[in-house]
Amino acid sequence: MTEFQYRCSRCGRTYGRDEVRYLCPECGRDYAPGMPLIGVLEVEFDYRDIARRFDRSRPDWDLFSPVEWEYFPVYPAGNTPFAPAPRLGERLGRPRLWIKNDGLNPSGSLKDRASLLVVAEAARLNETKVVCASTGNAASSLAAVCAAAGRRAVIFVPQSAPRAKLIQMLICGARVIPVRGSYDDAFRLSLEYTQLRGGLNRNTAYHPLTIEGKKTAGLEIFAQNGLRVPDAILVPVGDGVIISGIYKAFHDLRAAGLCEHLPRLVAVQAETSAAIHDYIVSGIFRPAVSPTTIADSISVSVPSNPDLARRAVLESGGFSLTVSDERILEAQALLAGRTGVFAEPAAAAAAAALLSDEARQRLDPDWQVVLLVTGHGLKDIEAPLSRLRIPEAVPADFAALPEDMPEN
Amino acid sequence: MTEFQYRCSRCGRTYGRDEVRYLCPECGRDYAPGMPLIGVLEVEFDYRDIARRFDRSRPDWDLFSPVEWEYFPVYPAGNTPFAPAPRLGERLGRPRLWIKNDGLNPSGSLKDRASLLVVAEAARLNETKVVCASTGNAASSLAAVCAAAGRRAVIFVPQSAPRAKLIQMLICGARVIPVRGSYDDAFRLSLEYTQLRGGLNRNTAYHPLTIEGKKTAGLEIFAQNGLRVPDAILVPVGDGVIISGIYKAFHDLRAAGLCEHLPRLVAVQAETSAAIHDYIVSGIFRPAVSPTTIADSISVSVPSNPDLARRAVLESGGFSLTVSDERILEAQALLAGRTGVFAEPAAAAAAAALLSDEARQRLDPDWQVVLLVTGHGLKDIEAPLSRLRIPEAVPADFAALPEDMPEN
Repeated sequence: MTEFQYRCSRCGRTYGRDEVRYLCPECGRDYAPGMPLIGVLEVEFDYRDIARRFDRSRPDWDLFSPVEWEYFPVYPAGNTPFAPAPRLGERLGRPRLWIKNDGLNPSGSLKDRASLLVVAEAARLNETKVVCASTGNAASSLAAVCAAAGRRAVIFVPQSAPRAKLIQMLICGARVIPVRGSYDDAFRLSLEYTQLRGGLNRNTAYHPLTIEGKKTAGLEIFAQNGLRVPDAILVPVGDGVIISGIYKAFHDLRAAGLCEHLPRLVAVQAETSAAIHDYIVSGIFRPAVSPTTIADSISVSVPSNPDLARRAVLESGGFSLTVSDERILEAQALLAGRTGVFAEPAAAAAAAALLSDEARQRLDPDWQVVLLVTGHGLKDIEAPLSRLRIPEAVPADFAALPEDMPEN
Repeated sequence: MTEFQYRCSRCGRTYGRDEVRYLCPECGRDYAPGMPLIGVLEVEFDYRDIARRFDRSRPDWDLFSPVEWEYFPVYPAGNTPFAPAPRLGERLGRPRLWIKNDGLNPSGSLKDRASLLVVAEAARLNETKVVCASTGNAASSLAAVCAAAGRRAVIFVPQSAPRAKLIQMLICGARVIPVRGSYDDAFRLSLEYTQLRGGLNRNTAYHPLTIEGKKTAGLEIFAQNGLRVPDAILVPVGDGVIISGIYKAFHDLRAAGLCEHLPRLVAVQAETSAAIHDYIVSGIFRPAVSPTTIADSISVSVPSNPDLARRAVLESGGFSLTVSDERILEAQALLAGRTGVFAEPAAAAAAAALLSDEARQRLDPDWQVVLLVTGHGLKDIEAPLSRLRIPEAVPADFAALPEDMPEN
């Protein structure tokens, strides 16, 4: 780990690590549940010091971590595969296509990276409870990390959370409170819970180390890509925190002199859950009216982190776009059928974006493009069923096998 | 890769790589579907050559591979986490407990390791179709690897295969033939299929590279354990091929002078699917009469590879035991609740073994014991439901939250 301070992303005030826990004490006063977070804190290192200590021939990524690695060995999140996808690239006319498959984290989603840091922080602070609201992945992740670390997870989820994610949380021993309402309602309740009953709140962006956790996916892309910056990274966006984390990775790398520019960050949202896209395009924030997308993990009316997401896209020279549920399911099948990666619908959104005219026009076909797959398809096996048919069983007799089976 | 020859595990005859494809041509004549395989081939390297070329300070594991690594980058199987499990160890009075979590392979099971090698071999042989029978995991794995590699997967599964696994195969574009019968019926049909209609057969142990693929899990345990041999490895056993692969890893390491002894290999079977356990104990092979276990991935009446499994256990100084479905589900919850690892029932069988008196008596509490987790719990989310209750949803109003929620 490296020492750090927190800096408010809005007013620029700085705070010592133990002076503050969640939002900027000044700006956060203006925050009330039901609106995006105000005064999200960012971790700021002494980048000159990192530059001095970092050795390109023997990279020590721990220099970019705000948390002691001693907390981590029992829950091996991260270090997920980064692999070329030539058959998918061929189909999309894009020879330099890569996949960062974060569905292969222990709980099946990228959220493990954030949970790990916040639970490590809870251990440091002797907090026995870690609390969160989630559409499902952050919660099942928190439940799993808490199980490994011996902490109590207290979880608020919309009652519509996919069954697989609920079962993950429960089998890991979390206290689960399904809420008759939306993710936004669960978010508010979890804040009230930590205010009134204690524990450390892990809500995304609300606890600043969530961004640092997600940052590790970006650091790994850089490391696994041979210390090179890809031309573009496509990121599914709901709350806007994953894309802020990827941005933060390359921000930190640049600040430490390890790269010269940022990858273009492309924010992909579902059509009905596009508050951040609209904000990026128009400059005016409005909640999504009715986020009904099949991509539950990026379904949100009032995203927590639109400001940092917008900055990530604009400062990196990227752009945002939206995809329909139909396109998401098409991309999910294409991704599985051409790479073997079974992604949950939200995670397939990045691939869906590549099917759009806009992405074709704005992403040069020769660029190295990375799809960030954020969650495993096994988390929601019903989603692809609208496009699949389970074949009828045949008798256990070769002579009875249909003739029309593939012969070559 | 390293050049190799095949050696028949029964008669000892050797064959060049392209002289033979599946069983020993001599011994295999005695084989008929419905019995265990006869004349399974094993890969034999020039171990003195490996010993000469292997450098402990910069290990090149490729020296132990029969297949060119150039086939592998598009499907990053393996390199799964190996982590200490102190909270589970504490509960079991076993401070040096570790988990090798192969549920984190891309398709969610250890089978990816075998599929990868056989599909690489299909590419080398210009075979466009790869065929297999499977209880589900090998098939979903083969479907995924074929999707990445541009081959056609043709898959026979018992119609009782879990829905999640069927959906995995289908979304990856495999040709799936559910069979009205058991895994044993599917196994026979798949052999008839390749005999009559061609393609490369990936059935476990039938194609000798499946054992080499599974071997990589053992090599990784050794590498991740600091080039040390653990005292014991607990392995869920159905067909007996995974345990043969783990044995082969340490056999090869010993033959190349990298270790002096084998880890004790403990074969764990489900009570109703215990043909290999009975064979190890009695020396007489009899099929399991009615393999009805909830642990579908190790449910088999006539296992394909009892001889090599038995040798693995006996030669390593290990033992075998059986666990009940009830114990498996108990262990599944314990594993998740104390490590965050959500394992499918078959994969939880290894942990279930540690709850038995026999394991307590035969595995010294001070030993380093490794649980091999072979498949992800998300592959069968209904299994744990008998022990879990999904809580009722509450109104989205903090004042209405039940008072009995955890307060500390």
